Amino acid sequence: MNTPVFDSVCRLPPGFRAAGAHVGIKADPKVYDMVLLVSDAPDTAAAGMFTVNRIQAAPVKLDIARLKSGRARAVVINSGNANACTGKQGWRDAEEMAALTAARLGLEEEAVLISSTGSIGKPLNMAPIRAGIPKLADALSRDGGEEAAKGILTTDTRTKMCTTTILVDGREVTLSGFCKGAGMIEPNMATMLAYVCTDAAVEPDALRMALKRAVDGSFNRISIDGDTSTNDSVIAFANGRAGHTPLTPEHPDWRAFQTALDGLVFDLAMKIVWDGEGMTKFIELRAVGATDDAQADKALRRVATSFLVKTGWAGTYPAWGRIVDVLGYCFEVDIDPEGIGIHYDDMPVMENSMSVKPDPEKLADIVSSNRYVITIDLGTGGGGSAVLYTCDCTEEYVRINMY
Amino acid sequence: MNTPVFDSVCRLPPGFRAAGAHVGIKADPKVYDMVLLVSDAPDTAAAGMFTVNRIQAAPVKLDIARLKSGRARAVVINSGNANACTGKQGWRDAEEMAALTAARLGLEEEAVLISSTGSIGKPLNMAPIRAGIPKLADALSRDGGEEAAKGILTTDTRTKMCTTTILVDGREVTLSGFCKGAGMIEPNMATMLAYVCTDAAVEPDALRMALKRAVDGSFNRISIDGDTSTNDSVIAFANGRAGHTPLTPEHPDWRAFQTALDGLVFDLAMKIVWDGEGMTKFIELRAVGATDDAQADKALRRVATSFLVKTGWAGTYPAWGRIVDVLGYCFEVDIDPEGIGIHYDDMPVMENSMSVKPDPEKLADIVSSNRYVITIDLGTGGGGSAVLYTCDCTEEYVRINMY
Repeated sequence: MNTPVFDSVCRLPPGFRAAGAHVGIKADPKVYDMVLLVSDAPDTAAAGMFTVNRIQAAPVKLDIARLKSGRARAVVINSGNANACTGKQGWRDAEEMAALTAARLGLEEEAVLISSTGSIGKPLNMAPIRAGIPKLADALSRDGGEEAAKGILTTDTRTKMCTTTILVDGREVTLSGFCKGAGMIEPNMATMLAYVCTDAAVEPDALRMALKRAVDGSFNRISIDGDTSTNDSVIAFANGRAGHTPLTPEHPDWRAFQTALDGLVFDLAMKIVWDGEGMTKFIELRAVGATDDAQADKALRRVATSFLVKTGWAGTYPAWGRIVDVLGYCFEVDIDPEGIGIHYDDMPVMENSMSVKPDPEKLADIVSSNRYVITIDLGTGGGGSAVLYTCDCTEEYVRINMY
Repeated sequence: MNTPVFDSVCRLPPGFRAAGAHVGIKADPKVYDMVLLVSDAPDTAAAGMFTVNRIQAAPVKLDIARLKSGRARAVVINSGNANACTGKQGWRDAEEMAALTAARLGLEEEAVLISSTGSIGKPLNMAPIRAGIPKLADALSRDGGEEAAKGILTTDTRTKMCTTTILVDGREVTLSGFCKGAGMIEPNMATMLAYVCTDAAVEPDALRMALKRAVDGSFNRISIDGDTSTNDSVIAFANGRAGHTPLTPEHPDWRAFQTALDGLVFDLAMKIVWDGEGMTKFIELRAVGATDDAQADKALRRVATSFLVKTGWAGTYPAWGRIVDVLGYCFEVDIDPEGIGIHYDDMPVMENSMSVKPDPEKLADIVSSNRYVITIDLGTGGGGSAVLYTCDCTEEYVRINMY
């Protein structure tokens, strides 16, 4: 059997080293604000997926350009400042950050990627970054995964890490990752950074394809507040140290690899929802009875970004009337206004657009738990369906984002 | 001069009577929950504009059908329960509410309109409504405007009323109105009820046209939380008691009438924003540099429904980076990603998609005030523009909507 187990740690595969530290971008000296992640193998394959926002921060533009080669060796990351909306200076700062890292590690500039996360519109404070790069390079270690996972956090309340192993050609292969993101999260890569490392040997094109599939089923299916950031990035490195024949879709263990990657990335994405800014409830939203899957998806995204729906979830009021309301004004989605059905877990609360009297105790039990499923039948009789993982919007969310 | 002055009172015009009372739909006996508004003139013209939500509550469907005649004499309103998503029973209850009122007032059933506002999905408790109708009919009075304005409130913290007078054919004409609405407010008639009475003589078609213009420039240009309700209604009555020649667009005083109606309805709409659930800041959002007005409007509606933008306004953090972020993922709107400009009041904070260093004291001054203007240049060089009146999203908003 080759069924992966997912551990909530970041155990870096052979040939990877990482470090995290406080260098002085953030004020609090106890809080990490910079990370370095390096692969020691010269021909490391790399792939990335990035924000679909038309306003892309300089680091995103730089990474997209460099990843065309399908190869990269390192990524240097800062938190506290997104280096977005910073014009030519922002671009120069991004290039310098990568160049200094490349020089210190003895790599080509083109082999170094960068990421930034934090406030938008302020120039990077380069002094601590310049001083921080050698410090991080000196601290690089096989055990640095957790330090790296700490260093990328912003409003997150905890690190998000996952590691799994599979067999490829009978050899043990490790996949390990970490991510951040707690607000401004919506499918299609909203303020979220994620890094995956594996010692598998994977052809660059195959890695890109596998990563896209994993992200489409995970990071692109979560929503915290519907805001899509300028900086989102998911980057995967495969350094080939496991020494098996390179993975492509034709390889007999390809499916095991894709399954492990899917599961790892899904696990990281769920950790983001569970740490949504101020969240108290994890909601799995499902749509059925849509004319097609895209319609089901659109409906869920509108429901998951309604202020009224999300604040209702924060309480224990089963606010399904608000869901119906959203469907009513979500004009781009076909519904049958007389045929909507809603379930909370397995309990129907609405059929044919009318309330049904649910058992009040059972309903209270469901809506006061910290995870439940809401299934929405759009009533068209079509076979389209979708799922979205989201959370409630609490007073704490407002407090976090007021300043 | 025929320049209207707008007073924040509801001084009913001659020939109108109103009453508000607690009848027992809401639990608290001090809180009004039912209203009756009647015109004493047999040929009163009436017009309405209603929610665009595809899920329409029974009262909305009933009013739309009855207003095809262009005539109505009364409206009976309850708060505390929206009679929405209540199926056939909801329709029967709506008809009964109108029929009982018609019988008590000696009117034809078709001449009575109804409105309901409150929770969705629960059947109306008809017992207090049946008992309340005669009680309200007995209390009808020319001075009942304020009582009526009280009786329609839900989460509103205060009544919203306006009265103005103009001269038509040299005779004094009064326009008077009241409204409610504090959440679930978004252009195109979101949970909001408004009633306008005038003793002007206006042909039904002209009244309908004038009301549409007034609502398009006011209620359809406000946004509290982007949620559009199942029950929104704006209803106008013109009973002709002023005795002038009937108003049509050809009448020399038509423009004065339209201006007064526009101003009255605008004043009521602004009162809704100022009483937005939990609001602390009134934001006038303007878009310029769009390819056309519809594009400008779309951009503003996306900005005004971003959780991050609205919670940012609640603090004193000038969160213009978040506005740029929204524009970046608002794919249905043309922007120049390198050409966005943003002003807070008259102070530029961004030009060509880059921050400019504003005077920090002046900026702090603006964003800590309780009303300011944000102007967004989408950078396309087009002449499209729009305005939207909105407010911040605070912890108090969440508290109000949690249950």
